Amino acid sequence: MTAGLRLDALLEAVAHAAGGQLPATLHGDPALRIRAVAPLDAAGADELSFLANPRYRAAARETRAGALVLRPADRKQLFGDGHPRMALIECANPYAWFALAAQRLSPAEAPAPGIAPGAHVAAEAQVHAAARVDPAAVVEAGAVIEEGSWIGSGAHVGAGSRVGAGSRLHPGARVLAGCVLGRRVIVHSGAVIGADGFGFAPLDGRWIKIPQTGRVMIGDDVEIGANTTIDRGAMGDTVIEEGVKLDNLIQVGHNCRIGAHSVLAGCVGIAGSASIGRGCQIGGAAMIAGHLSIADGTLIGPGTLVSRTISEPGYYTGFFPLMPHRDWERNAAALRHLQELRARVRALEAGLKNAPTKDD
Amino acid sequence: MTAGLRLDALLEAVAHAAGGQLPATLHGDPALRIRAVAPLDAAGADELSFLANPRYRAAARETRAGALVLRPADRKQLFGDGHPRMALIECANPYAWFALAAQRLSPAEAPAPGIAPGAHVAAEAQVHAAARVDPAAVVEAGAVIEEGSWIGSGAHVGAGSRVGAGSRLHPGARVLAGCVLGRRVIVHSGAVIGADGFGFAPLDGRWIKIPQTGRVMIGDDVEIGANTTIDRGAMGDTVIEEGVKLDNLIQVGHNCRIGAHSVLAGCVGIAGSASIGRGCQIGGAAMIAGHLSIADGTLIGPGTLVSRTISEPGYYTGFFPLMPHRDWERNAAALRHLQELRARVRALEAGLKNAPTKDD
Amino acid sequence: MTAGLRLDALLEAVAHAAGGQLPATLHGDPALRIRAVAPLDAAGADELSFLANPRYRAAARETRAGALVLRPADRKQLFGDGHPRMALIECANPYAWFALAAQRLSPAEAPAPGIAPGAHVAAEAQVHAAARVDPAAVVEAGAVIEEGSWIGSGAHVGAGSRVGAGSRLHPGARVLAGCVLGRRVIVHSGAVIGADGFGFAPLDGRWIKIPQTGRVMIGDDVEIGANTTIDRGAMGDTVIEEGVKLDNLIQVGHNCRIGAHSVLAGCVGIAGSASIGRGCQIGGAAMIAGHLSIADGTLIGPGTLVSRTISEPGYYTGFFPLMPHRDWERNAAALRHLQELRARVRALEAGLKNAPTKDD
Repeated sequence: MTAGLRLDALLEAVAHAAGGQLPATLHGDPALRIRAVAPLDAAGADELSFLANPRYRAAARETRAGALVLRPADRKQLFGDGHPRMALIECANPYAWFALAAQRLSPAEAPAPGIAPGAHVAAEAQVHAAARVDPAAVVEAGAVIEEGSWIGSGAHVGAGSRVGAGSRLHPGARVLAGCVLGRRVIVHSGAVIGADGFGFAPLDGRWIKIPQTGRVMIGDDVEIGANTTIDRGAMGDTVIEEGVKLDNLIQVGHNCRIGAHSVLAGCVGIAGSASIGRGCQIGGAAMIAGHLSIADGTLIGPGTLVSRTISEPGYYTGFFPLMPHRDWERNAAALRHLQELRARVRALEAGLKNAPTKDD
Repeated sequence: MTAGLRLDALLEAVAHAAGGQLPATLHGDPALRIRAVAPLDAAGADELSFLANPRYRAAARETRAGALVLRPADRKQLFGDGHPRMALIECANPYAWFALAAQRLSPAEAPAPGIAPGAHVAAEAQVHAAARVDPAAVVEAGAVIEEGSWIGSGAHVGAGSRVGAGSRLHPGARVLAGCVLGRRVIVHSGAVIGADGFGFAPLDGRWIKIPQTGRVMIGDDVEIGANTTIDRGAMGDTVIEEGVKLDNLIQVGHNCRIGAHSVLAGCVGIAGSASIGRGCQIGGAAMIAGHLSIADGTLIGPGTLVSRTISEPGYYTGFFPLMPHRDWERNAAALRHLQELRARVRALEAGLKNAPTKDD
Repeated sequence: MTAGLRLDALLEAVAHAAGGQLPATLHGDPALRIRAVAPLDAAGADELSFLANPRYRAAARETRAGALVLRPADRKQLFGDGHPRMALIECANPYAWFALAAQRLSPAEAPAPGIAPGAHVAAEAQVHAAARVDPAAVVEAGAVIEEGSWIGSGAHVGAGSRVGAGSRLHPGARVLAGCVLGRRVIVHSGAVIGADGFGFAPLDGRWIKIPQTGRVMIGDDVEIGANTTIDRGAMGDTVIEEGVKLDNLIQVGHNCRIGAHSVLAGCVGIAGSASIGRGCQIGGAAMIAGHLSIADGTLIGPGTLVSRTISEPGYYTGFFPLMPHRDWERNAAALRHLQELRARVRALEAGLKNAPTKDD
């Protein structure tokens, strides 16, 4: 528990972090000390909460938070020009403001530098003096760990790979030989960067392995979720551009490219050589077939299989709607004959055209 | 290989374990020694098998098992009042009886207590004298390992976390900082408890990380499958109530709650802040969208995407039925125009209404 | 960088590896030295590329590769009887030829034998003198590591299990107690072989665990992807036959059997006791329900849920087609009433039959 930060200092810190992109106005006591962030229904007098989604307006009216960041329009509607008991911070993008405030109030733990006694660091590896390697972690020959990076316990940095400055491998994260991570990359536990891609040539009923000789190249500020797997390229590289955020249990096949600042929710699968544009948002459990491309800025709904290239950005979906099982059985049975149903409708249309009307 | 257990002793042990909930009647030799359990088609004279699903009646008639547990009605139908060669145990719930008998015949290995030489246990961690920590496991400062727990090789218990009495972390299971496990919790290899949730605020085309400061709280008797991931809460906690069983490769997002005694099959994904009731059964690869709730006792079919709150318990499904690819191509093409087909049917109905009948 | 291999030596090596199954003809300089393989658009004068998919013909015409393997018909169409600047290798199966050539040019690293200082090998384990065990790996009592195998850092070989000759466990791969791997098996990072199957009997609102006492048996030349999980059998064994290739993040339930030389793409889930035939190809994220079987040589499309036995080999699919979200909303709404639509069409057909035609 800390004594917290004065609201005016918090505003200044957020303004600095945002580089002037998030102008905000404080209505309330600048000397109020904020210790932490909390959700609307749990926040207390020394905590900050936020209102971004209009459906939480009622909760915002009731919150006991000491400070609340919200849009000017929400402030007007909820509180008019009155003086509510909490401090209000008006901002056009309250969620981003809140995120930066939360980072200031809960800063990422800075690693105490040093190689733990139980770590396995090859003599030929380069670990920066201001980096940290935890017990049971392995850093192989030729690997480079840059300044301020933290290799968690049981993590693996393979031969000849590079972990950029300020990056963090959580316990059990694995970066295999020859892969390259940018700066401030976060790899969560159990993620595997650089396993062999899935490449085999059929020969007489069996499968001949294609050696996977490419790498995985990961840009700055990428975050990779727990137990997510990103395969190395077959010949060229698999590329994750800067700012991409991957959730847990995602599979990225060999030679894929994911454009900068795209976000992929959990359980997504991407087959080999798919190319996803910049700024895309892919819903959970969506599946992207191989050898296709998705335009910059495309949104894909959850559970959707993308089986063809998407050239026009937009919002695409494709999942069977949920229904009571009995209804599903009937509708699924009808779906098996949908093409015939269409033909029957066509026949009816022809038949009705042929029928006299009452006016005939 | 053990000498096995007398049938009468086995019945007594199961009755004791069931707390009187599973009355059973033995027809056969109480002195018969049973060494193990086995499936109907492989069981031998010193083995116990079971019949629960009626479609295995023929196999039950042919089994060479020494003992068979089954429902009274199945006994009557299969064997009448005759004396089959095997001992019969009549029970209204033969599968549960079998499960408890199997537990008695194959008891979970009790851990030989002690910290292995190659384990990495922080000086400030508390490991109970009757707990076991295997080589290459890591127990960080402030962690508490209670009596009878077993931390497998390469497993991780993060700073300040707690592993309740009698729990088992299989090799490579990871419980990250600050998370709390109840008693008799089983975490299978590669599972990750407490990675950061997936929370980012958009700002000018990039994504600002929301620090994930909550925990994962896991109740008693929970089992968590291999490579399953359960994220810590963003601000509050992610909660898995007692008796929940999660299969492999499941993703549970931040701030989810899973009600007591629910079971989730493999490859299920649950987005953030979803609340699943008690006693639910979720089929394999089902996907639950975020910020919704599912009523107690709900069944969800496999491969189903739950995109809205379910208030009424029931059995819900939603997946595209399997069909030969050529049929699928045609039906899927028709499905892309289903709304138009409906409009055409509506037009036909209007047109036919307008047409004279033969009686006009 | 190596000096490379003369083309005539490469042809001889591939012919040897293929056992005479891949006759090939060289048109060009047999003394040309090839150093590596590369894709058509990146290959240079000392590299080999291939043309198998006709849609890359234009790229093949433009490639700067030193050598190109292709079908006779493609050679004829692209180059006629002319002498292109690169050497051409004619082969009926250019992709398989290329795969074997790539293996020759990028041979799998042979492990330098020995047990690393930081490895944890039980006194009662048998590690062949020509096997390698890396730091932080664990080999438990009774385990057997055969000749030429390589147990990567942080990998786990459980008590009484066996790793066949020439196999490789990549960093963090886990083979749990009692499981058996054949020869030349590759297990990628984070894969878990032999976790408990998901077996519970319901009793009065809670779930009784069925001890999982079977094993996982894996044949020769199997490859298992990163973070894939294969559960041990409940009583009998889970069996993966020889030559099977499993991609990343696949779940194989207890007592499944996967027939020889089948290939399964990433994110596939297979529920317990399913039996997949030989030579099947299962698309990414397909889901196979339990207690069913799939005929030899069956193809399953991506994202498809197999909910019933498939007795006839063929190509089966079942996923909702992708569409713009607005169209999806309308079509999904109509799909919820498809059965009624069918009934309305039937009524129309009856009504139209009853209507007079213009000829009446």
